[in-house]
Amino acid sequence: MTNRVQIVGATGYGGLGILELLLAHPEFEVTGLIAREGAGSRIDEIYPHLVGRTDLVVEHAEAAAIGADCDVVAFATPDRVSQGHARALADAGRRFIDYSGDFRFRDAADYARYAERHPGIAETSHGAEELLGRAAYGVSELAREAIAAAPIVGNPGCFAVGIILGLAPVFHDGLVEGGVVTVDGLTGSSGAGKKPSPLQHLSHLNDNVIPYRVLNHQHVVESEFTLGRLGSAEGAVVDFVPHLLGTTRGILSTMHLRLTRTVERASLLARYREFYEGSRFVRVLETPPTLKNVLGSNYCDVSLFPSADGRRLVVMSSIDNLMKGQSGSAMQNLNLMFGLAETVGLDRTPLYP
Amino acid sequence: MTNRVQIVGATGYGGLGILELLLAHPEFEVTGLIAREGAGSRIDEIYPHLVGRTDLVVEHAEAAAIGADCDVVAFATPDRVSQGHARALADAGRRFIDYSGDFRFRDAADYARYAERHPGIAETSHGAEELLGRAAYGVSELAREAIAAAPIVGNPGCFAVGIILGLAPVFHDGLVEGGVVTVDGLTGSSGAGKKPSPLQHLSHLNDNVIPYRVLNHQHVVESEFTLGRLGSAEGAVVDFVPHLLGTTRGILSTMHLRLTRTVERASLLARYREFYEGSRFVRVLETPPTLKNVLGSNYCDVSLFPSADGRRLVVMSSIDNLMKGQSGSAMQNLNLMFGLAETVGLDRTPLYP
Amino acid sequence: MTNRVQIVGATGYGGLGILELLLAHPEFEVTGLIAREGAGSRIDEIYPHLVGRTDLVVEHAEAAAIGADCDVVAFATPDRVSQGHARALADAGRRFIDYSGDFRFRDAADYARYAERHPGIAETSHGAEELLGRAAYGVSELAREAIAAAPIVGNPGCFAVGIILGLAPVFHDGLVEGGVVTVDGLTGSSGAGKKPSPLQHLSHLNDNVIPYRVLNHQHVVESEFTLGRLGSAEGAVVDFVPHLLGTTRGILSTMHLRLTRTVERASLLARYREFYEGSRFVRVLETPPTLKNVLGSNYCDVSLFPSADGRRLVVMSSIDNLMKGQSGSAMQNLNLMFGLAETVGLDRTPLYP
Amino acid sequence: MTNRVQIVGATGYGGLGILELLLAHPEFEVTGLIAREGAGSRIDEIYPHLVGRTDLVVEHAEAAAIGADCDVVAFATPDRVSQGHARALADAGRRFIDYSGDFRFRDAADYARYAERHPGIAETSHGAEELLGRAAYGVSELAREAIAAAPIVGNPGCFAVGIILGLAPVFHDGLVEGGVVTVDGLTGSSGAGKKPSPLQHLSHLNDNVIPYRVLNHQHVVESEFTLGRLGSAEGAVVDFVPHLLGTTRGILSTMHLRLTRTVERASLLARYREFYEGSRFVRVLETPPTLKNVLGSNYCDVSLFPSADGRRLVVMSSIDNLMKGQSGSAMQNLNLMFGLAETVGLDRTPLYP
Repeated sequence: MTNRVQIVGATGYGGLGILELLLAHPEFEVTGLIAREGAGSRIDEIYPHLVGRTDLVVEHAEAAAIGADCDVVAFATPDRVSQGHARALADAGRRFIDYSGDFRFRDAADYARYAERHPGIAETSHGAEELLGRAAYGVSELAREAIAAAPIVGNPGCFAVGIILGLAPVFHDGLVEGGVVTVDGLTGSSGAGKKPSPLQHLSHLNDNVIPYRVLNHQHVVESEFTLGRLGSAEGAVVDFVPHLLGTTRGILSTMHLRLTRTVERASLLARYREFYEGSRFVRVLETPPTLKNVLGSNYCDVSLFPSADGRRLVVMSSIDNLMKGQSGSAMQNLNLMFGLAETVGLDRTPLYP
Repeated sequence: MTNRVQIVGATGYGGLGILELLLAHPEFEVTGLIAREGAGSRIDEIYPHLVGRTDLVVEHAEAAAIGADCDVVAFATPDRVSQGHARALADAGRRFIDYSGDFRFRDAADYARYAERHPGIAETSHGAEELLGRAAYGVSELAREAIAAAPIVGNPGCFAVGIILGLAPVFHDGLVEGGVVTVDGLTGSSGAGKKPSPLQHLSHLNDNVIPYRVLNHQHVVESEFTLGRLGSAEGAVVDFVPHLLGTTRGILSTMHLRLTRTVERASLLARYREFYEGSRFVRVLETPPTLKNVLGSNYCDVSLFPSADGRRLVVMSSIDNLMKGQSGSAMQNLNLMFGLAETVGLDRTPLYP
Repeated sequence: MTNRVQIVGATGYGGLGILELLLAHPEFEVTGLIAREGAGSRIDEIYPHLVGRTDLVVEHAEAAAIGADCDVVAFATPDRVSQGHARALADAGRRFIDYSGDFRFRDAADYARYAERHPGIAETSHGAEELLGRAAYGVSELAREAIAAAPIVGNPGCFAVGIILGLAPVFHDGLVEGGVVTVDGLTGSSGAGKKPSPLQHLSHLNDNVIPYRVLNHQHVVESEFTLGRLGSAEGAVVDFVPHLLGTTRGILSTMHLRLTRTVERASLLARYREFYEGSRFVRVLETPPTLKNVLGSNYCDVSLFPSADGRRLVVMSSIDNLMKGQSGSAMQNLNLMFGLAETVGLDRTPLYP
Repeated sequence: MTNRVQIVGATGYGGLGILELLLAHPEFEVTGLIAREGAGSRIDEIYPHLVGRTDLVVEHAEAAAIGADCDVVAFATPDRVSQGHARALADAGRRFIDYSGDFRFRDAADYARYAERHPGIAETSHGAEELLGRAAYGVSELAREAIAAAPIVGNPGCFAVGIILGLAPVFHDGLVEGGVVTVDGLTGSSGAGKKPSPLQHLSHLNDNVIPYRVLNHQHVVESEFTLGRLGSAEGAVVDFVPHLLGTTRGILSTMHLRLTRTVERASLLARYREFYEGSRFVRVLETPPTLKNVLGSNYCDVSLFPSADGRRLVVMSSIDNLMKGQSGSAMQNLNLMFGLAETVGLDRTPLYP
């Protein structure tokens, strides 16, 4: 039986990503493309690379009943959009997955910490906070059962996916001294979406590296909550510096921490492989991850390098920010929500070279 | 029934490309990876983006009987390799497809014109010229029946694919004055393969444009023969200037010609669409093609712009040089050779953004 | 004696370019930076790479009398700005140079042909057409005396510089059959200025090639007038296809033509060298020009390749679009206007690698 | 009086860089270009961007007496070249500056620590260790007097320049807890020189990020020695992860440390500005540094961000690796060695955009 998906925010990169995955998926069907801009146009007029692949037309939000004619809604929208529709959907028994921070947090207190870090929503309160407890946080590998059962899935932030998957085993095992990690994250420009801006202008960004929101990025909040509550972890502090690169796709995170006890590399690698057994999208490698080795795929590559004295550790992870960092994780979560193997429709070789 | 393929030259970009397509194909199986370099290694050690996707091991050419244990051999090798094995394969009744210029020409005279333009093989004669007549030239859209029946397919040169598909309808209809076209071709660096060289060094090529082999590229020869013998065409002269770009993938060809009679844009577009009816990989567009709109896919996008007086015409085409320009065409030809729909295993959305 | 320059449109890439050249020039001084955006800010707040190099402050256009407190005004502004100030400046005896198409044409008829090709100013008439005859068109190498004497200089369009310098000798000598040339131009993104747009978005343009305004770019008009009136030329038709590249700087133009008579390469090269004797910024090379070989400099590199039969010719030229294609030419013209050697302040080695 | 320089290793990027700076310098003259490859060619044949700027010819090492006909030798050579000539030059009273690690260390013990980290020279001993004590380590801002007086200057490693200038004030003031810093360094490809390699191949590196030599890069050694011996510092441990980017030029270093006491941002910025007073090439900024803001210039941009609780600190610095990271520092040191202002010949605006 085909599962029917409505995409809200269909004309941004996030909407495009899940549309492409769903079009190629044997068990899902797209029943509606909803967006504020581009309504009335075929999606292949907006994105000509789709010519010949779909004749779907974008509809205006007002013209379409959000949640109608579908089994699940995918909100590929900014913060504070899905929370405005959440109660109506919950009342109608309609499940949804959301790309923003709206449903990544378990309660109002956690959400408030996030909101104060986010420049777009600072000092606002949640519009449907009673539903936060019913949402699952969608780093698939860490919460398969919760995601499968949840009426709402909060799809994770792109940086958070790479940080959390890279560090989950050491936080789980209580190996991080003081719970403190420093992370330098490098991201392609597509993470900021398709909207033109001076920062995204090719003449400015090409061949450049631009650090931004130093120690102040909102994805840190969900990373700290998630890592700090795993297994033996007793909280997490993530000192995070994001850097914008002159590339389109990819996030590489380099993470530094002090170990609570000396660990050899071989045993750490073995522990990571055990931790991610059955998680086909996490590849634990001997060599450093790179952006190109995961491009266009749903993989998260992870690698580990302890210092010579075994007291400090470098962990690196790489993802395609629009796949494992966004629509790939969403597809994986939709698979889980509908009882499918998490890899269906995601079995793609990275595009190299 | 699964068709069994042996890949020779498996560790170059061409071998990698057909390997990836075959691994994901429901009707083909790879039975051997043969290469001079990397023998003894798993292919995912050489290309770590393949970790988790295959455990195939590269074998040395001497250690493996070329053509053994397979239904077809794919030679992803330079000029003059497959011609050395051609007689033995023909005698054994083993079909093969070849990526080089070895079997792109119908007879020794045509091949000689090619050889004199090719810096690597100048002044050599063909090693198996009696087999040239049994080979089909593999621009799939123009020769489906010949390819399906042929024991040997000469996979086309990357530039030639874009030029030929872009100009076939106007040559076929006798619309090109004097048969003369001027073509500026822009190519990503991967067309030159994985071998390091000063020209391919990132510090040299990044942000650069480097014209090379001006009016002297060997792909012109197969383009001239193919276009000049279509329908009402009476020969072709292609003045071609290739330009190397600081990108990895993609070829965009801009082609200029004088029309033998005034033609309106709408009727030309209609004619192109008619010509390519049933050719799902050729997309005739109203807007100019771009590299990114075909990236990672097997599409060839084509667009047309006559001059205001309707006497001169600009045709543009774009392909991914490693897909439609190489392994994608090879996969399409293998499908045809084994009686499958030409699109099987090639139904991929371009990677955008 | 220092010459005093006021820059109007100081915060765009054009204003920035001439500011940087003037700051380093021994004979010029900048007395005012005027712009609509950024007024009140120091220019090094808008462009932090200038920290430590100048403390000039941007003034609002209304707050500053255009043409006051200076010997010359440099309008680094879009079309139709300088023509609004031209009469007042002429009346005050103040010279100016303009970056737009406003003063590139000798009379209203020529300007009208340009205006109808330009999307921003179509169907408008010139605001000071009686002054067109007093302006010199600023391809410095072709009009040194006129520029030195003119009260107004129309700085040339970026594509036009590369096309005109590449083709001037063959048009001058009547070698171009029918006066027809086809030109494929490749440009970095900075030619479109600093304003964000979907086309300039890094995620869209990076690794891409995007043809645009096919056979319909406004720079063709000044190229056709200039080339078609040189020496023995009898008009010019330039079929021009601009292509946007995912690089920041540089224009490479590949130009094709049929020769009126057979010419050998050596004699053409000799003729080009003779034609450009004394023109230090035009380098006639044996090998194809590249973008990087002129990056950051005022050079125009030119190279020539006849077909084997000597009847057709490929000419290629490369420039830095923000230098020889814009502010470098402006600086060269300002030098000429003030009786200085044209190379002063422009003696820069290209930035390679 | 003009100072006369002989360049050894003249055809690599390092030799090219110092050649270009010297050609434009009012007080220096290049008397010899010596190299193993390219001997007999004009340097503008090897680097065509130099056409019109010099007619110097490269000589073979054997053909030229190293140190003859000059006041100073610039060795732009790999490790273990200059140490083979050092005694002869010292005996002849000829000063030299060296780009490799040969003379960056004060004694044999320090050099041994470096050598064991360097893959190219591991387990070798120094060829002229008695001269190590006479060499000055050339981070110009920290050792002007020593450099001015020294017969030998060891030009610093590219990463080391950015790390040392970024952290010198906090190490000097004893503010770094345990002397431990973690550094993620991002570098363009030109740091590896012009020699082709798989890692530098555009198809591999373009759009990529490739961490390498994790916690094991040889530039750490000189950084640790230099920082750990400044003012109140009591040693330094630099956990360093270099990352190769798909850009040509630039190094951005992001450095994390714990402070020995709480410090406010304003006072730290003030302290940095005081520390670098009179150092025109170090710009202490409020906003994060970027690669493009220093491109082609000798600047080192530095910025500081303490954590909210004031106990941890992020310092970022950016340089052009071929200028301040190599030839720019060399030129600055040559100026100091010959009693000139350190900025002569280096007064360049970064190339932006």
